[in-house]
Amino acid sequence: MEFPSKLIENAVGELAKLPGIGRKTALRLTLHLLKAETEATSALAEALAKMRFEITYCQTCHNISDTEECSICANKLRDHSMVCVVSDIRDVIAIENTGQYQGVYHVLGGVISPIEGIGPSDLHIDTLLTRIPESEIKEIILAISPTMEGDTTAFFLSRKLREFPDVHISTIARGIPMGGELEYADEITLGRSIVERTRQAKA
Amino acid sequence: MEFPSKLIENAVGELAKLPGIGRKTALRLTLHLLKAETEATSALAEALAKMRFEITYCQTCHNISDTEECSICANKLRDHSMVCVVSDIRDVIAIENTGQYQGVYHVLGGVISPIEGIGPSDLHIDTLLTRIPESEIKEIILAISPTMEGDTTAFFLSRKLREFPDVHISTIARGIPMGGELEYADEITLGRSIVERTRQAKA
Repeated sequence: MEFPSKLIENAVGELAKLPGIGRKTALRLTLHLLKAETEATSALAEALAKMRFEITYCQTCHNISDTEECSICANKLRDHSMVCVVSDIRDVIAIENTGQYQGVYHVLGGVISPIEGIGPSDLHIDTLLTRIPESEIKEIILAISPTMEGDTTAFFLSRKLREFPDVHISTIARGIPMGGELEYADEITLGRSIVERTRQAKA
Repeated sequence: MEFPSKLIENAVGELAKLPGIGRKTALRLTLHLLKAETEATSALAEALAKMRFEITYCQTCHNISDTEECSICANKLRDHSMVCVVSDIRDVIAIENTGQYQGVYHVLGGVISPIEGIGPSDLHIDTLLTRIPESEIKEIILAISPTMEGDTTAFFLSRKLREFPDVHISTIARGIPMGGELEYADEITLGRSIVERTRQAKA
């Protein structure tokens, strides 16, 4: 695709570097911005640059934050003895949106992946281990996606956490998702959902 | 969806204003930028702002251009007596990519749409009419999408162009697209493709 303007070409090229955006979509977005008010583009460009350059991370849990301590860690009403370990900031947002968790978090910043060259030292594991005695943590919930890399990370963490015999380690429940059909579930999930069945309370 | 940072919230909000990008996609793009080098974000923000604020339009054909006259109008090798009238810059790019057209263009900047409040005076029709005698134009090709608004615009234009009896008016051919199956073509297209059949040259 050739463009009549270098400016357009640059904008399309930069947009097309984003995941899931091809050159055709990038051109559509560029022409949309061209048709809209100039303020729309400057607001977008500013918001992106500001976000990238001014963002800070919570010093305790490595969640994104506008201050030194994120709003979750700063919240005295939350249970600070329970830490949910997640790989990514996205997971924090997802769990927070359920409204079901009252503890705090620890964001690893990824999972162990030898293929991508990410080892345990690249993740925020040290700070988790120093945090346990300091904050009198009683339970650690491993909420890491059950992929090959995720399981490796969870296994590595549970080995490391043997240092703290008083801390309970748990993982999020695996099973059939709500609205999911049994016949379409994979065998491992279905098998675990039977083995780890929950007993109904008697009415 | 609640975000732990106002900066993230702003970035997601601005990205989600783009067509075809929802808040989930916007969050994915934002977190992608956060993970990538800071240069990636500044390059994107700069390219967008530069594109929007520095873009100029060709004074002859209203195509986007980095100079007063676009590269197509400035090209002496092209046939300046043949003008292809399109509604949008995207159409210029699409036709240019075919490599089949050697004339010049005229970008209307939209189509007549009473619902959106776009009348003939909002389009670059006046400049087309003044351009015809000035540039000794011999043929005008109406390459406007065959939608309700597009057909209205084409009809309006062909009425206006009656002022110039020496100028040939043509429209792009309608018919079955390459690779298209006859049975799935709509009746109007199929009907026109039979009425306007092209005779094969004898071998």
